[in-house]
Amino acid sequence: MKGNIFYAQSGGVTPVINATAAGLIDAYFRNKKYFGKLYVGRNGILGALKEELIDISTESKTELALLRKTPGGAFGSCRLKLNDYRKSKANFQRLYDVFREHNIKYFFYNGGGDSQDTTNKVSKFFKEKGYPIVCIGLPKTIDNDLPITDNCPGYGSVAKYIATSTLEASLDVKSMSETSTKIFILEVMGRHAGWLAASAGVIKKVSGDPPHLILLPEIEFKEKVFIRKVKEITNKYGYCVVVASEGIKNGKNKFLSDSGFRDSFGHAQLGGVAPVLSRLITSKLKYKVHWAVSDYLQRAARHIASKVDVNQAYSLGNKAIIYAKNDITDVMLTIKNISSNGKYKWSISYTNLDKVANIEKKLPKKFIKKNGYEITKQCKEYIQNLIIGEDYPAYVSGYPRYAKLKCKTIKKRLPPYKLK
Amino acid sequence: MKGNIFYAQSGGVTPVINATAAGLIDAYFRNKKYFGKLYVGRNGILGALKEELIDISTESKTELALLRKTPGGAFGSCRLKLNDYRKSKANFQRLYDVFREHNIKYFFYNGGGDSQDTTNKVSKFFKEKGYPIVCIGLPKTIDNDLPITDNCPGYGSVAKYIATSTLEASLDVKSMSETSTKIFILEVMGRHAGWLAASAGVIKKVSGDPPHLILLPEIEFKEKVFIRKVKEITNKYGYCVVVASEGIKNGKNKFLSDSGFRDSFGHAQLGGVAPVLSRLITSKLKYKVHWAVSDYLQRAARHIASKVDVNQAYSLGNKAIIYAKNDITDVMLTIKNISSNGKYKWSISYTNLDKVANIEKKLPKKFIKKNGYEITKQCKEYIQNLIIGEDYPAYVSGYPRYAKLKCKTIKKRLPPYKLK
Repeated sequence: MKGNIFYAQSGGVTPVINATAAGLIDAYFRNKKYFGKLYVGRNGILGALKEELIDISTESKTELALLRKTPGGAFGSCRLKLNDYRKSKANFQRLYDVFREHNIKYFFYNGGGDSQDTTNKVSKFFKEKGYPIVCIGLPKTIDNDLPITDNCPGYGSVAKYIATSTLEASLDVKSMSETSTKIFILEVMGRHAGWLAASAGVIKKVSGDPPHLILLPEIEFKEKVFIRKVKEITNKYGYCVVVASEGIKNGKNKFLSDSGFRDSFGHAQLGGVAPVLSRLITSKLKYKVHWAVSDYLQRAARHIASKVDVNQAYSLGNKAIIYAKNDITDVMLTIKNISSNGKYKWSISYTNLDKVANIEKKLPKKFIKKNGYEITKQCKEYIQNLIIGEDYPAYVSGYPRYAKLKCKTIKKRLPPYKLK
Repeated sequence: MKGNIFYAQSGGVTPVINATAAGLIDAYFRNKKYFGKLYVGRNGILGALKEELIDISTESKTELALLRKTPGGAFGSCRLKLNDYRKSKANFQRLYDVFREHNIKYFFYNGGGDSQDTTNKVSKFFKEKGYPIVCIGLPKTIDNDLPITDNCPGYGSVAKYIATSTLEASLDVKSMSETSTKIFILEVMGRHAGWLAASAGVIKKVSGDPPHLILLPEIEFKEKVFIRKVKEITNKYGYCVVVASEGIKNGKNKFLSDSGFRDSFGHAQLGGVAPVLSRLITSKLKYKVHWAVSDYLQRAARHIASKVDVNQAYSLGNKAIIYAKNDITDVMLTIKNISSNGKYKWSISYTNLDKVANIEKKLPKKFIKKNGYEITKQCKEYIQNLIIGEDYPAYVSGYPRYAKLKCKTIKKRLPPYKLK
């Protein structure tokens, strides 16, 4: 009897996590003879724990075909960090019961650092149980902070959104600056790593071009220097564009804007550093300031996804099935830069899960200019490779036509389970 | 001697105000034999007062060709309201001196309500002076609040951005809602009129679809009802998407978020109603909330402009030249809905400037559902017509290639002038 597959989406979603799902689903249908059913967990690993499994063959082919171009997590995601299986056995035992009951022999988990950690734990637990299962982590994070892989799917599209939005808003504030708004601040995501804020830097060609100041979490925020710079730039060019990472911290290692709320991973829920900076500039320099917080808009902006990014995300899903067919396990798939002759090329590879779990890759020093507010040529080239090409969704009635899945779960066979 | 033309951009810019400039410039070159030079004012009417005139024939044809697809105000805009010319004569006398010196016989002013008021004053002043000049106001405002015209250029593109962004972010929050964020709030522009917030409503097909709550400035914000609604919706659908106009007011007629800052027209600079609503929901209902403030991103988002909107904006510029050639004056151009057989069709017309100056067109009652939080079918149809079609810019290196004009001003002939 051929083993069934379990696939799920985890953590913060991206414009292209569904492209990875699409790649996996398409490859599954092409390789159907090697596998049993493909079950997708409703809301990530929760779907396994609650025995909420979506049989992919019951979804409409038309809607599945739209998945590659649909943002969000079409099957639901979750923020749920499993504890060590030696300490908190109940959840793992439940996973075991569900997987055994449904003959699941392939576990694909699509997420960021925390989700790779989950995949690693699941793999180790089943090994101890002597239950043969292929465990493959599929990377996904707009933060671009996973190690080993050259880049993370999701990042390129959000970087393209940020570069484009910064360029567009800069043209706006420049037009207004003579008699009105002189400062524009764009707040972007990035709790610990400045990859997203850095992406705005690709639009700068010559000194004086926006963005004038990129505020990275890797660099301590110094109020006095910042205010002096804003003043100098505005005096010189008539306006000043600031792109700020939500995760910037002051000298006391305190987030400039910490709402005090913690998510279930214990991470601070940030947001709102732009209004803090705006108030600061208005009070010290009396300039009129406009600010934007793009929040979910940036990571859901499938309408301006990067073609390279979509292709990579899709390929990862494809390759996961091929690797699984060949019994490659306990790995996270990676994107390798195999450029030659200055032309960007990439391929899919993999690395051991032990190497990636809980490691955050920050913006390297060589990517940040000495002044701390700009990115280097090398960084620009790295990002530019990942934002090339457009991959527009279809539009109906003026807005994108995205996939609408039924997400109907199969009949449960086990008693209900209360999450521990 | 043929008269020269003065054209300028005024007020808050839009994704398509440059399309109007492009339409005007293209038509000017086609009708060159009827006119002298085409001067564009640097930073709106300021360009006339300061004698900062850009001779359009000195700009590169390649860059001018990109103008149709470039956001912002390529020649600089201004927020400057001229007082009554009988009370504040100096500025008008200066306009007279500059226009006479440069043989300017055509005045095209591209802006919103305040700018139409300026055009009207200029027209009346020159008439009193006995100086023959054609004065034509070109409409432009993302707020869609000008009277007479069926809609305003700029609105359709921002509406398309808001509809698309709301759809995308809704898919995101829906994915996250089981274990994390349940509420998403998008703050959009709209000080007194809810046209922009309303545009999010076009994506709602059936009850339960986002956006669940649209907060319009036309409707008093009632905290208790709002909180009850958010709770009900979240209980029923698992998540709740709110689109809030920056200009919503409470029962005391006070903006929910007034930064205290006033622009030179005396309007409050708003922004930041989303964090206010977020704090409210978190404190009353304990849900995890995400919020975005799109600010300039929305009105600069040329990358997702509406094709209908771009075509209308461009046509307005075109027609301005044709009307001027025929000595039509003291008018604001308008867009007329000439639909037939249920198919949206439009044409360009005009109306007397006296009829438009300082009148704000709010969202009509018939466009708002009785509950005050949704739009009617009629409203949806109205908006849908204006967001149809895509008109993508070209991309180079992963981000849009927008026009870069030199904006070099001609040699001044008059003594410098200090603005009164």
